[in-house]
Amino acid sequence: MRVLGIDPGLTRCGMGVVEGQVGRPLTLVDVNVLRTSSDLPVAQRLVTIEKGVDAWLDEYAPDAVAVERVFARSDVSTVMGTAQASGIALVCAARRGLPVALHTPTEVKAAVSGSGRANKAQVGAMVTRILRLDAPPKPADAADALALAITHIWRGGAQARIEAALAAAGRQSRSPDR
Amino acid sequence: MRVLGIDPGLTRCGMGVVEGQVGRPLTLVDVNVLRTSSDLPVAQRLVTIEKGVDAWLDEYAPDAVAVERVFARSDVSTVMGTAQASGIALVCAARRGLPVALHTPTEVKAAVSGSGRANKAQVGAMVTRILRLDAPPKPADAADALALAITHIWRGGAQARIEAALAAAGRQSRSPDR
Repeated sequence: MRVLGIDPGLTRCGMGVVEGQVGRPLTLVDVNVLRTSSDLPVAQRLVTIEKGVDAWLDEYAPDAVAVERVFARSDVSTVMGTAQASGIALVCAARRGLPVALHTPTEVKAAVSGSGRANKAQVGAMVTRILRLDAPPKPADAADALALAITHIWRGGAQARIEAALAAAGRQSRSPDR
Repeated sequence: MRVLGIDPGLTRCGMGVVEGQVGRPLTLVDVNVLRTSSDLPVAQRLVTIEKGVDAWLDEYAPDAVAVERVFARSDVSTVMGTAQASGIALVCAARRGLPVALHTPTEVKAAVSGSGRANKAQVGAMVTRILRLDAPPKPADAADALALAITHIWRGGAQARIEAALAAAGRQSRSPDR
């Protein structure tokens, strides 16, 4: 499966496309960071992000989109813009009927590094190793977007296996008339 | 001028269209509240909001869109959804090239009631009086959307007068060679 990971943000919006499946080596398809100037009105910046996400959905036709889940934290002045950018990313995917998943930063860190408290450098190093890159993707938003896509493939795989097991158990336990 | 005011929200998104100009009686064109179920995924809810806003932009062809400015407040669990909905409203307007303005709740309360600390009932009562309605618009999100549109028309008028005065002053004080 091919997954577009999006690390939303108004100033820098990371986008990374990863292809592969659980238990096989994953491949980097492309990675980029959309940037919009803080001199522009928010509405205009969001339109630029919408265009960038739509262009990648056209170009890479992912099977699913994974977006970082944003939390309200009053101490972060940029959180409103991040939430708005994530809303745009969600809409771009959903109006095409693509499956969309939200993963928390902790889930992503745990998936790629084994620790929910991994720092930026550790996430970057693990993304580099998992995708067999020559160097960590820069900036951090690029690595985070790839880590989201990796997480989605790995969790999706686990989720699919759990659901298959539950379905199999259900078939065995289910009475014939149901 | 005709203004679409939007009080963004995931569960209830108020939309109100007001027509008129400063110093003249304002007219209610239409008001509605978009509702999306909390049972649906956020992405799907945002798509519904996008469709609703787009439909009204098509139907009422406003000259400008006024959206409530959302602030980060960690004690409000809905603030992320509100920010995402506001992002959708901003994009819907901006990709049509419509002017978009953000007004804070305090600015809206002050504009329609004379006090930045007016409560919901006071705002509803003033909207009712300003638009010469038979009863306050319900729910509060509907009244808030109309209050935003009213604020935009009135502030826009004041802003235009200030800019005209500054431009006139600039012309007088400017030396001929500049």
